[in-house]
Amino acid sequence: MTISGNTRLIAHLGWPTENFKAPMIYNPWLAAQNVDVKVVPMGVRPEAFAAFVPTLFTLTNLVGALVTMPHKVVTAGLVQQLTPTAAIAGACNAIRREEDGSLTGDMFDGDGFVQGILHKGFIPDNARALVVGCGGVGSAIAASLAAVGVPALTLFDTRESSAQALAMRLLRHYPTLDVTLMKNDPQGHSLVVNATPLGMSPGDPLPLDTDRLRPGTFVGEVVMSQTWTPFLQAAMERDCQVQRGTDMLFEMIPAYLRFFGLPVATPEQLRQHAEIKE
Amino acid sequence: MTISGNTRLIAHLGWPTENFKAPMIYNPWLAAQNVDVKVVPMGVRPEAFAAFVPTLFTLTNLVGALVTMPHKVVTAGLVQQLTPTAAIAGACNAIRREEDGSLTGDMFDGDGFVQGILHKGFIPDNARALVVGCGGVGSAIAASLAAVGVPALTLFDTRESSAQALAMRLLRHYPTLDVTLMKNDPQGHSLVVNATPLGMSPGDPLPLDTDRLRPGTFVGEVVMSQTWTPFLQAAMERDCQVQRGTDMLFEMIPAYLRFFGLPVATPEQLRQHAEIKE
Repeated sequence: MTISGNTRLIAHLGWPTENFKAPMIYNPWLAAQNVDVKVVPMGVRPEAFAAFVPTLFTLTNLVGALVTMPHKVVTAGLVQQLTPTAAIAGACNAIRREEDGSLTGDMFDGDGFVQGILHKGFIPDNARALVVGCGGVGSAIAASLAAVGVPALTLFDTRESSAQALAMRLLRHYPTLDVTLMKNDPQGHSLVVNATPLGMSPGDPLPLDTDRLRPGTFVGEVVMSQTWTPFLQAAMERDCQVQRGTDMLFEMIPAYLRFFGLPVATPEQLRQHAEIKE
Repeated sequence: MTISGNTRLIAHLGWPTENFKAPMIYNPWLAAQNVDVKVVPMGVRPEAFAAFVPTLFTLTNLVGALVTMPHKVVTAGLVQQLTPTAAIAGACNAIRREEDGSLTGDMFDGDGFVQGILHKGFIPDNARALVVGCGGVGSAIAASLAAVGVPALTLFDTRESSAQALAMRLLRHYPTLDVTLMKNDPQGHSLVVNATPLGMSPGDPLPLDTDRLRPGTFVGEVVMSQTWTPFLQAAMERDCQVQRGTDMLFEMIPAYLRFFGLPVATPEQLRQHAEIKE
């Protein structure tokens, strides 16, 4: 669909932009629905972000913004309203402007991750999940796991204060949650999540000791720059059930589309139209 | 060409955006050259513009900005360097970021207009031109007419101060120019230009008394929202030689492409690829 003066924009905010996948997933779907909205990449350095967001939302043809690394945590402080999920996550990956001009932030990373593993057969009851990385996406996944009834979470981050702060936000909303801090041993967990950027760059260390993964464990990844990260490859060698970063992306898009008031697709419909391979 | 994380942007700034033509001219040409750059419309209200421009230029994947109504005059005060043409015009329709981070503004409306009428056979020597409307585009056309050697200009604007200010800027650079102020009678002129927005809305009055147009006069129009404005229709009925707003657009784009460091097209090549009819 041709870009014209009637085209409305969804700004895809992040830096660097080269690994962005969303334009190639949203745009073909929206074009197929005859919706004249385009997701366009906008590379914003961290030091420019806080000034950019309020001015971006003065645009008259902006539908909203997708927010990706490294801006998700900062975004939570730049909007006037946070949804409950975004508040627990302490991060946003979507912003829209309300009729009164105020900005609302929401967070779909966690929902996308959880929808994906539920579709793959993960059962939350009595599960214990290990979340490595307690930044924006790790916090969101932890919040969504608690929301679907996972009773026990282990949180690890190289910055201990991040793990502690996430634990406090979780316990405020889920006071009976069993939270263990600062262990990154996968043993004893039925779900293990890499929510760090490790795996984006060649030569990155693994986020945890994959020799201690048991067969059948659900192993999820948030890195999307390569489909099969070394972490996921190691998990597959140990007969774990794996979920790729791109799986999470497709699973969260229906919620994004609903948030922006656009025609909602199933993950399968999105895959059929997408201009990227998974 | 698919929008991806590698796509660079040219922001097309104006308000309202609905009549924008540039995306449908630039984007097919750039795609045909395998250049991953997209012109995208960004609607900016006047009160938001001064804050938006500096933050826009913090984007890492921005090539530059096209500036259209109502922002061209304001832009001249928002950049660190003006080209000579932009300085005389007192307005900019293009902005790029230099390596040192500073912004340079240039103005191609006048060059586009003048290239177009020169291609149609207009001879500048001994010509007298009437420019109705002394805002950004009218000033630019006057500057470019003086630059190609038109010796006599008549300037008219409903705000007399605008016409006077333009006359002073012209005379500073072209001290021998014969400038007449505040007459909008086309008689005695070999070139007559509507550089006002009159013609954009149904029911607009004509910019001047078309009954006084002589056959053979060159008559140019800057309004692009309709191909044949009532003003141009009246001029054709009087056997004038006419130039449409969209003619000017195609003629100025080669200079824009050069300014942004992109592959340069001739107006004919642009027309072959364009996704709009003229």
